[in-house]
Amino acid sequence: MADSLAPENSQKMLRVRIVLVNTSHPGNIGGVARAMKNMGMASLYLVAPKEYPADKAVWRASNAVDVLDGAIVVDSLDEAIAGCGLVVGTSARDRRIPWPMLTPRQCGERAFAESEEHDVAIVFGREDRGLTNEELHKCNYHVHIPTNPDYSSLNLGAAVQVLAYELRLAALAHEDGKEVSYNDWDVPPAKSDALEHYYVHLQQTLEKVGFLEPGNPRQTMTRLRRLYSRIRVDEMEVNILRGILTAMQNYIFRTDKKLSDKVDPD
Amino acid sequence: MADSLAPENSQKMLRVRIVLVNTSHPGNIGGVARAMKNMGMASLYLVAPKEYPADKAVWRASNAVDVLDGAIVVDSLDEAIAGCGLVVGTSARDRRIPWPMLTPRQCGERAFAESEEHDVAIVFGREDRGLTNEELHKCNYHVHIPTNPDYSSLNLGAAVQVLAYELRLAALAHEDGKEVSYNDWDVPPAKSDALEHYYVHLQQTLEKVGFLEPGNPRQTMTRLRRLYSRIRVDEMEVNILRGILTAMQNYIFRTDKKLSDKVDPD
Repeated sequence: MADSLAPENSQKMLRVRIVLVNTSHPGNIGGVARAMKNMGMASLYLVAPKEYPADKAVWRASNAVDVLDGAIVVDSLDEAIAGCGLVVGTSARDRRIPWPMLTPRQCGERAFAESEEHDVAIVFGREDRGLTNEELHKCNYHVHIPTNPDYSSLNLGAAVQVLAYELRLAALAHEDGKEVSYNDWDVPPAKSDALEHYYVHLQQTLEKVGFLEPGNPRQTMTRLRRLYSRIRVDEMEVNILRGILTAMQNYIFRTDKKLSDKVDPD
Repeated sequence: MADSLAPENSQKMLRVRIVLVNTSHPGNIGGVARAMKNMGMASLYLVAPKEYPADKAVWRASNAVDVLDGAIVVDSLDEAIAGCGLVVGTSARDRRIPWPMLTPRQCGERAFAESEEHDVAIVFGREDRGLTNEELHKCNYHVHIPTNPDYSSLNLGAAVQVLAYELRLAALAHEDGKEVSYNDWDVPPAKSDALEHYYVHLQQTLEKVGFLEPGNPRQTMTRLRRLYSRIRVDEMEVNILRGILTAMQNYIFRTDKKLSDKVDPD
């Protein structure tokens, strides 16, 4: 196994982005940049970092300042994952609603295989609290790095190091001809922004027909998100699903109009 | 795959020591301590560190100061590896005299397996120059972490992180009832008859709102079936999905009733 990758495989690694949400310590951003470059990654998104740009980030990045220079700072996770066909969120083990899980190895294999088709995001949360449930529910899969249960808080750079290492191993395994098969589909997967629009549309419609209390979706929307995100809805399917909602809204609109055109009998 | 190890396997991990030779920056020693503890390792040997003890080491170790406190400082590599039945040295790729090589994965598997029999050492060199040839020749095997050839200098903590992670994976793989299964879902899967009822219900509702032509669903129902069947919808989810359809039907029923209660104005 040689270290170097064929150009097309190096390119594929560049389509896998690292997204850091609300990072507190700029030194960690630098550490992440270094870990990424060591493994041949380059695409870094920073969602509302607490303190950035910062000298500490540059210092910790060592010779990976080019990764920092290319980093894209955005306000929301939605912006950071827009256009991605696969979104994986890093997570501690026990969440109330289990989500489809990948091991770090599976994460590397899948991210590399799918980068043939579309951009991929691997999302890391805050140093102290990780990702919120709402953020985790925007992900297709969760990945958990196994750690000592008595001391499980991995440094951000260390966590990126492990997942970037697995991504590179997957790329190298691909070089050696041990191809990881990507179960290809007849239609490309819906991108995360199209899915977000669908969820908003769905919630509105469910509130309108009284299935959900307005503004208080509780666990139901979470369960619906989990359901659709684990199917990897494709582009045609998301169009059908939205078409169904539109048909319902139109039906409601027509009957409401008929109602208002009529008068109460007396 | 649970994170925790059986006591005998935790014990085996403690028999694998990390040896750092001539480390320049005490911060790196702290980073190594943290990476070790995260993965359940504890035995650290420091061969003639340039600056130690040091506040920077404590600071970077975060809550892994116990690993630092237990670190054994010695003058020579020979002392650090005394009593070890397996010594693995970290190495860049091209050495003049080829040595038996392990991948990081093989290193983790072998170190864990042999720790049943004897102490094991994994040796890391200087930040700038690694291990000397003389030091490398004291090792049974060399291990090389694959990196981007354009930027291959891994931070010491990052290198330990990767090899400690592989050691933990090997330990977890060894645990009883092995086989990584993430199939632990919180709710049992819906049975096929429940799904069939759902499809009938769905088609009726879609015909009612005009999304499907009555009796002529064409490809749309097929695509919807394919979508839901590939998720393995669980029992609670199928109840939510049917609840949505019922809410829509009730809404339609109520407005139809209101319509028939009113009269056309004239």
